[in-house]
Amino acid sequence: MANIKEVAKNAGVSVATVSRFLNKKGYVSETAKENIEMAIAELNYRPNHVARSLSTKQSNLIGLIVPDITNPFFPELARAVEDIALSFDYTVVLCNSDENPEKEEQYINMLTQKYIAGFIVSSNQLTSPHYDIDVPIVALDRAIHPSIPTVTTDNVEGARIGTQYLLDCGATNIVCMRGPVGLGPADDRLKGFLQATEGKDIQTHIIESPFYFEPSEKVAEKFLKEFPEVDGIFASSDTSAIAALKMAQAMGRDVPNDLQIVGFDGVQMGKMVSPSLTTVAQDIYEMGAYATKMLIKMIEGQELLEKNINISAELVVRGTTRGE
Amino acid sequence: MANIKEVAKNAGVSVATVSRFLNKKGYVSETAKENIEMAIAELNYRPNHVARSLSTKQSNLIGLIVPDITNPFFPELARAVEDIALSFDYTVVLCNSDENPEKEEQYINMLTQKYIAGFIVSSNQLTSPHYDIDVPIVALDRAIHPSIPTVTTDNVEGARIGTQYLLDCGATNIVCMRGPVGLGPADDRLKGFLQATEGKDIQTHIIESPFYFEPSEKVAEKFLKEFPEVDGIFASSDTSAIAALKMAQAMGRDVPNDLQIVGFDGVQMGKMVSPSLTTVAQDIYEMGAYATKMLIKMIEGQELLEKNINISAELVVRGTTRGE
Repeated sequence: MANIKEVAKNAGVSVATVSRFLNKKGYVSETAKENIEMAIAELNYRPNHVARSLSTKQSNLIGLIVPDITNPFFPELARAVEDIALSFDYTVVLCNSDENPEKEEQYINMLTQKYIAGFIVSSNQLTSPHYDIDVPIVALDRAIHPSIPTVTTDNVEGARIGTQYLLDCGATNIVCMRGPVGLGPADDRLKGFLQATEGKDIQTHIIESPFYFEPSEKVAEKFLKEFPEVDGIFASSDTSAIAALKMAQAMGRDVPNDLQIVGFDGVQMGKMVSPSLTTVAQDIYEMGAYATKMLIKMIEGQELLEKNINISAELVVRGTTRGE
Repeated sequence: MANIKEVAKNAGVSVATVSRFLNKKGYVSETAKENIEMAIAELNYRPNHVARSLSTKQSNLIGLIVPDITNPFFPELARAVEDIALSFDYTVVLCNSDENPEKEEQYINMLTQKYIAGFIVSSNQLTSPHYDIDVPIVALDRAIHPSIPTVTTDNVEGARIGTQYLLDCGATNIVCMRGPVGLGPADDRLKGFLQATEGKDIQTHIIESPFYFEPSEKVAEKFLKEFPEVDGIFASSDTSAIAALKMAQAMGRDVPNDLQIVGFDGVQMGKMVSPSLTTVAQDIYEMGAYATKMLIKMIEGQELLEKNINISAELVVRGTTRGE
């Protein structure tokens, strides 16, 4: 394979000029640029990124840390991150943290050794000291630290709108499946639920529930037995909402006629169940795309005009509510 | 941060010995090993993987190429690959090919420049010349080339069993949603369907259908209108099966009492719909784990005892069939 010296010779410029061109650092005349591009094409030269990352202390690898790629919210996010990264010639290393700070730290250590260019992190380790590293980080979905740029959904307002819709549709005895206590987005969604319901002449039950299917089914079974008069469910994730839907149907409840359900997330799966799930949809692709563009700006030394992006969620009315 | 010279000095050995130790190449005495390990711990030394990959022409990055991570089969596969890779100190670069040979080639080129250690590829580009590269490859789910080690499901036998079960449950007029023509696993599943149905006194309809939800709904709507007497569906993917279930219910069909459905894949989503999907379940995690272990063996220069692994699929009976 051709090396940088041969490219320089073919282009009639110095090796230093080719290096400046490849690393996009320093001045290269337009004529030199054209000659180098032609030489690269002619010799089928592939710049050696590993060698370059040694000299510039920068690679084009982005680490994406998510809790679990099999949770249906995260493949859609990962897809957006990868699409945008690729369009800027970056590639994405996928890391599942399982919400485990030690596993996160192991990843951060392994990847920092590879001169990773930056991280996009969907984590809840607010106080993790291992994020005190010298590469750019963007927090996605969940804030990590005030100093770290963040892309989130407006969870409070989204939950308020979703809960208000249940009230508008006539629900008067509502369970909030509030997600895990202490998880930022779940806590914010509970705030929105409370904003919509407090001071209203209705009954509410706030019940902790993980964002996983089978445990959510068990939670739903328990409260549907304990409070048979419940006529509305606001769930802090679509996975929990779908679990409640399935359990309610198995227990002979008619959704939406005697029990209405609103989820939160807007994952594709919500369209696949019967009836389709009414939900507060996050713009998942837009969140991933935004975070990736912010990170690449930081990696390339550009200034961020906005450090905290809060994207609106949107109510998507489908079949698990009765309409107003 | 400490460098390799300081480690050598602290351990009382030469830099070359530390380097042999780090790269696991050549002889290092047990005493030297212990001293080096202590020095590394004491100095909190992080070996520089980028510099090492330059000297050994090897990194611990694995490229995972899948058609689309948002197709629910692939997150479960990616999860297994990442789990096993991490346990061997490898990390995974995620690539969505969209079944587009040019995009695959772009990835292969970008990653080969980074001295990627190997690729796991779930692709259908049988004749792609860009796989003629000098790093190990394992094909997963879909065979690429006879020379490339492959991990697949026994699709023919799985489909035969799934179809036979529909017959055993009394279906006599069956649609096979056969997936995309020319896609290896889909073609094999059609073979299994034909093995089970040929020569039997039943009616069959073989209909092409993509592995995506909305297009599968349209396909199902069309054939349920055209052949209202259909009483069984064998779908080549769970996504298509779930689309058919939803459409059938929307058209007033009673599943499983007057229409039975069997899917193929065994993704988590099959448990979330009502009724739960009867399906031919691939051992998705095992497939990903197997492929990753094979690839790491190849990367580390060990011999593969088996080059082609064909894992059995298993019928999982749930609610979209009536039972025998």
